[in-house]
Parts: sequence; structure tokens; C-alpha cells
Amino acid sequence: MQSIIPVKLPQNAYEIHIATDGIKDIGQKAKSLNIGQKILVISNPEIFNYYGQIVIESLRQEGFEVDHHLIPAGESYKTLDSISSIYDKALSLRLERNSTMVALGGGVIGDMTGFAAATWLRGINFIQIPTSLLAMVDASVGGKTGVNHPQGKNLIGAFYQPKLVLIDPMVLKTLPEREFRAGMAEVIKYGVIWDKELFEQLESADNLKSMDVLSPELLSYILERSCLAKAEVVGQDEREGGLRAILNYGHTVGHGVESLTNYHTFVHGEAVAIGMAIAGKIALQAQLWTQDELIRQNNLIKKAGLPLDIPSSVNQEDLLNSLQLDKKVKAGKVRFILPTEIGKVIITDDISQDLLKTCF
Amino acid sequence: MQSIIPVKLPQNAYEIHIATDGIKDIGQKAKSLNIGQKILVISNPEIFNYYGQIVIESLRQEGFEVDHHLIPAGESYKTLDSISSIYDKALSLRLERNSTMVALGGGVIGDMTGFAAATWLRGINFIQIPTSLLAMVDASVGGKTGVNHPQGKNLIGAFYQPKLVLIDPMVLKTLPEREFRAGMAEVIKYGVIWDKELFEQLESADNLKSMDVLSPELLSYILERSCLAKAEVVGQDEREGGLRAILNYGHTVGHGVESLTNYHTFVHGEAVAIGMAIAGKIALQAQLWTQDELIRQNNLIKKAGLPLDIPSSVNQEDLLNSLQLDKKVKAGKVRFILPTEIGKVIITDDISQDLLKTCF
Ligand SMILES: NC(=O)c1ccc[n+]([C@@H]2O[C@H](COP(=O)([O-])OP(=O)(O)OC[C@H]3O[C@@H](n4cnc5c(N)ncnc54)[C@H](O)[C@@H]3O)[C@@H](O)[C@H]2O)c1
Ligand SMILES: NC(=O)c1ccc[n+]([C@@H]2O[C@H](COP(=O)([O-])OP(=O)(O)OC[C@H]3O[C@@H](n4cnc5c(N)ncnc54)[C@H](O)[C@@H]3O)[C@@H](O)[C@H]2O)c1
Ligand SMILES: [Zn+2]
Ligand SMILES: [Zn+2]
Repeated sequence: MQSIIPVKLPQNAYEIHIATDGIKDIGQKAKSLNIGQKILVISNPEIFNYYGQIVIESLRQEGFEVDHHLIPAGESYKTLDSISSIYDKALSLRLERNSTMVALGGGVIGDMTGFAAATWLRGINFIQIPTSLLAMVDASVGGKTGVNHPQGKNLIGAFYQPKLVLIDPMVLKTLPEREFRAGMAEVIKYGVIWDKELFEQLESADNLKSMDVLSPELLSYILERSCLAKAEVVGQDEREGGLRAILNYGHTVGHGVESLTNYHTFVHGEAVAIGMAIAGKIALQAQLWTQDELIRQNNLIKKAGLPLDIPSSVNQEDLLNSLQLDKKVKAGKVRFILPTEIGKVIITDDISQDLLKTCF
Repeated sequence: MQSIIPVKLPQNAYEIHIATDGIKDIGQKAKSLNIGQKILVISNPEIFNYYGQIVIESLRQEGFEVDHHLIPAGESYKTLDSISSIYDKALSLRLERNSTMVALGGGVIGDMTGFAAATWLRGINFIQIPTSLLAMVDASVGGKTGVNHPQGKNLIGAFYQPKLVLIDPMVLKTLPEREFRAGMAEVIKYGVIWDKELFEQLESADNLKSMDVLSPELLSYILERSCLAKAEVVGQDEREGGLRAILNYGHTVGHGVESLTNYHTFVHGEAVAIGMAIAGKIALQAQLWTQDELIRQNNLIKKAGLPLDIPSSVNQEDLLNSLQLDKKVKAGKVRFILPTEIGKVIITDDISQDLLKTCF
């Protein structure tokens, strides 16, 4: 079972391959690209332990000269120092302009590998093998790469496109369930903002909590439609001016909740789920969509085992203030992405403080 | 006196302004670009001492919020650590996507500022005010930005285009003469590889050794034609596949000479001058151009106070071997850029070892 999503960008075109057990074919797939002999696989120790050898063997079988470099797991290693360690490895391997870096991991590894590939010799080839659901449906699509500054997330980076994204749903078997559910929040988001059919397919599932309860067909379908949604949105707005903002649905309030709980209580996807529930409520109060649509959205969130409510520890005033600090504020007005029906959103800064207060 | 060279690239277009005493008008020029309020000027202490206040005052007069960041002078500071110090400054100033970094300096400051601008928030605005002749005619044109790795030059970087390049010939008054002459080597190079008229104008000058002996008109003309030559070549080959290679005229042997003298004996332009003299000799032996043309080229090199001969300390065998290590070698054959007449070169790997040996 394999599906291919072509991504066409003004100066780059590449494909997203979604293929069950596809990682063992990475060698052949890489061979079909016009790339040099040398490949550096970048991963973290845990993920490499599961899948590193399969990937490396497959590449070696096609005659590639392969080495690997591991970075400890976790967001706290998404730093310029880690990038520097990749540069040192690239130098010791004498990587050339036609050499390739392969990201084997979640969004953290993907973002770092992409940035290192973008900046080594002013840009070498880059292949993504995302291993978390979030990386598959979100981080690996769109060309954003980078690292954190000690004082802020993703402040350092570049736009850089891969030569290939290979998604093998089977690797999700080892992903912790909480991470799986967090990724599902972004999937539900695509249903609400862009793809009604995806939304309805999600409704048809008994449960969205873990990989085991989904049929392989539904899982592949979810991955495909999610990548397509992001690719379509990003394709119309590669460097963030307009449309791309709709991908922040649920994220304005979500970021507020994340920050007011000191990034300890929730993983990103959980906070986004809460943010979507609030955005849905605002849309209802503003008479943009119906109670029925809001309930349908929230049912999906529940089916994915994700939270709907702001925890009582978060103060309403603090949360309202945090929105004012968000990047998406223009001239004091908070800009919201709000649904008008399942599969459609608008961007508006026309929500009064009074209306807002009734929604928290 | 002002001339404007429009640079048109597939995804970017900007202008090179060559304007006597132009730095005091940087404020107005910046104002006419569509950029935000915040500007960070990056320079080194010496250059900032000469021109920093003029630039900052001019920008402030147009209402910009301006700060500056200095990096010690010299190639040894062209490092990722210096970039990191720029990031810290950018954070402390809360630079935004529409903010601007201005490079006020030679190629070292220009390359670093461009890379920091390319990677802060995935790309903010960038303005070049090159202050060395080399930076004016070479480093500031073409979009290459970056830093050195401890073990190799320019290994880390990005292609990134400025919003404006402002060249004020008057700042060359304070440039050490040896640096001036080194830049002149690249100017002569453009005459040989691309622009016969530039070459002839250089011939009409009594002397090319320092800024004082050139008329303001000739100096402006030289800057203009050199930028144009590089912009034309680069415009046909933004990311290095074919034509751009001709810019390496004199550089294959030049790099060998630089490295075999441990980067102590010659500055880059001096080594390039020697490289052009050798390349000219090879072209003569290969009957590509005439003795008369070779003499004309070498006369210009002499008039610029630049060396023609390989120093006796450099062993012929070592130099021939060093060519084999050059990046420009394909399948064991050294690729040479050789002139066929003044203003025209070809790229060839069809030069026998026997012929080569007679030219060193
Ligand atoms: N570039 C973009 O457009 C974009 C978009 C969204 C998020 N991001 C970035 O992505 C990062 C978050 O990504 P993430 O959620 O994948 O986090 P992550 O990369 O930290 O992965 C989460 C955890 O799951 C583990 N893991 C991943 N795949 C596994 C597998 N198959 N089996 C077992 N364990 C596995 C990882 O080791 C890690 O511990 C953030 O840094 C965020 O900024 C980037
Ligand atoms: N990006 C490119 O396409 C490109 C092309 C060629 C060279 N370069 C890079 O450029 C660098 C070399 O540039 P450079 O020769 O300008 O070196 P540089 O920047 O080190 O400047 C040379 C010296 O002149 C001083 N200086 C510069 N302008 C002055 C002025 N107006 N008054 C007084 N002093 C002044 C500097 O402080 C420095 O000490 C190298 O790092 C090289 O890799 C880049
Ligand atoms: Zn998200
Ligand atoms: Zn040069």
C-alpha cells in the first residue's frame, strides 16, 4: 500500500511517499533521486535503536556510503550546539554538495536535520523520515527548519525543502500513546479548517486514541489527507503572508494555555485541543457556526483522548492577557482563526472582549 | 553622482546603488524600502569608528530605531560563535520579521551579517554597505553568506539576497592600500573574463595601486562595471551549476599558492593575481590566446602593484599536486578557466600535465 503526494513549489518539487513498511525501501527510493553517494542519517538514540539499522541497511544495499549521528532526545537538545555537532560530523565525513542528510525522528530531529542540511555548504540534499504522528502530518511538511534560542522557540532557522518525505505508518507502533494523541489534535485541526471529508472519516472511527484501534486503511487515509491539507495551504503561501495563518487554528489559546501551565501540564497537541474547543465556542457565540458543528468537533477531540477544558489552575484574566502577547496580535486586536462550518475557517480580528469573556 | 544597478533574480530583485558620499543618505534609501522600524547595524570596531555614527544618524533621522553590534575584525572571527552573538543581540532588541540587519564592513562582516539575517526568524531584511573594495565588487554581490568551520572556509552558510547594496566609494579612503590592491585583482579578473571595455578603461589609467591615483569617475566606473559583471554571471546561475565557475578565473592556482604559503605570505587578491598570470600562460601555451593579450593582462596586474610570480619557496610539484585537491577537479582532470581573448573565457579540463609543467 503506497500513496504519493506531489508537492509543487515555485523553485522546488518533491514527493511525500506514504508506504506501509516503507522504511525498508528507503534505499531504492533514495536511489531514484539524483543524489550523491554519501548519506548521513541523523536520529536520537531511542528511535535509532528501533529503526536505524533497517534504514542504514536499505541504503547500503543500494551502494550508498552511510554513516549516522545521534543527538539526545528532547526539545532541550534542539539547539545551535546540536547543529554544530552535525557540522563536525559532516566535515569528518567530507560531505559534498550532492551528499544527503536523512532525518529519522520526530519534529525535533526533523527541524534540526533540515537546518543543518540547509546551511552545510550552503545547502545539501535532505530527506525526511518522520517517526512521530506530529512530524508526519505537520513538522515534515512546509519547509520550516530550525532550532530554539535559549530564550525562545524556533527563533533560528531557514525555509528549506526536502528532496523526499517518506512516511511509514508502521513506525508509529513504538510511539508513546500520549504522543500519538497529541499528533491527532493536528489531524482533527485539518478536518475542521480544510477537509470536511477527512473530518467525516474521523467521525466514522470508533476511537482515535491509539494506533491499534485504527485500521491500516484509515491510518493511511488520515496521513494522506493531513499531509495534503498542509501541503495545499503551504503551497499557496510558502513563506507566511496570508493563508498559512489558518494552520494556527486552536494555537492562539493553545499557546496561552501551554505557557500559563509552564509547558509542564500539557504536551503541545493537548493544548491545541483545548484551543480548538475554545475557538469553536467563540465561533458559536459569534454565530459563525452551529452548536451541532461545535459538538461534532468536540466529540472528535474526546474520541482522541484529548482535553477540552482549560484547567482550573489557569486564571481567565491571565489567559486573556496572554492572547494580547501573541505574535498574531495586530494593533491590539487579537486575530482569531474561527470555523464557519466543518472544513472552513475565516481569519478575523472582530471579536469583542465581552464576547471573549463568555467563552473561557 | 549615483548609478543604480538593478539585480533581477527569479524570486528576488534588488538594487545596487553606487553613490559618492552615499552613506549619509542610507536613511532615505532604507525608508524607500518596505521595511520595519527596527534596524541592527553590524560592523567591526575600526570601521564603526570611521562610519558608524554617520550611518546611524542618517537612519535615526528617518525615524528608524537603530542599535549596533560589533564583532572584532578579522577572518578568525567569522565563526558560528559570532553569529550566536548576533542572535543574542537580535533577541534582546526583539527584532521582528520586518526588521533589518545592516552590514557595515568588508567581506567578513558582510558574509556574517547576511547569514544571521538569513536565519533569524527564518529570514529578516538585510542591507549591505560594503566598505572594502573586495566586498564592493565581489562579496556583496551574488547572495553567498556564511561563516567558517574551524577546519574549513565558508563551509556553513546560506544563499540569501539583500534588499539593497549601497556602495559609497569615499569609504575606500580609509582602506589600507594593500587591501585596495587585493580588491583590484578581482576587478582585473572581471575585465579578462567578461568585460573588455572595463579592461580597456583599466589600461587607460596611469596606475591602479591606490584610490588616490584614480579619478572619481574612473573609480565609480570600475565599481559599476565590476558589480554588473558579477551580477550578470550570477544572475544566469544563482546557485552554482555552470557559468558561475568562470568567477574562479585565477583562483585554482591562487588557492594552491595561498595554501602552500600557509595564508601568511599573500592576501587573497595577491594569490589570485599570480593565479591569473599562470592561467594566462597556460592559455598561451594551449594557443587559446596571444602573447600580446597575456602581456596586456600582466601589465594591468603590475599596474595594480600585484605579484605575477610564484615565490621560489613554493615547490612546483607541490603546487601541481595541490590542484588535484581542488574542489574543481572532476575525475582526476583539473578544470581550468582560461581566456580565449580579453573579455572571454572557456572552461576546460583538456590541459595535459606536460603542458601544465611548462607554465609554472
Ligand atoms: N517544522 C515545522 O513546520 C514544525 C511544525 C510543528 C512542530 N514542529 C516542531 O516539532 C517538534 C515536536 O515534534 P514531535 O512532537 O515529533 O517531538 P519529538 O521529536 O520530541 O518526538 C516526541 C518523542 O517521541 C519519540 N519518538 C518519535 N518517534 C518515535 C517512534 N516512532 N517510536 C518511539 N518513540 C518515538 C521521540 O524520541 C520523542 O521522545 C517541536 O520542536 C516543534 O517546534 C515543527
Ligand atoms: N560572499 C561572497 O560571495 C564572497 C566573495 C569573496 C570573498 N568573500 C569573503 O570576504 C572576506 C574577505 O573580505 P575582505 O577582503 O573585505 O576582508 P575583511 O572584511 O576582513 O576586510 C579587510 C580589512 O579591511 C578593513 N576594512 C574594511 N573596510 C575598511 C575601510 N573602509 N576603512 C578601513 N578599514 C577597512 C577590515 O576591518 C579588515 O581589517 C572573506 O571572508 C571571504 O570569504 C565572500
Ligand atoms: Zn501545532
Ligand atoms: Zn576571489
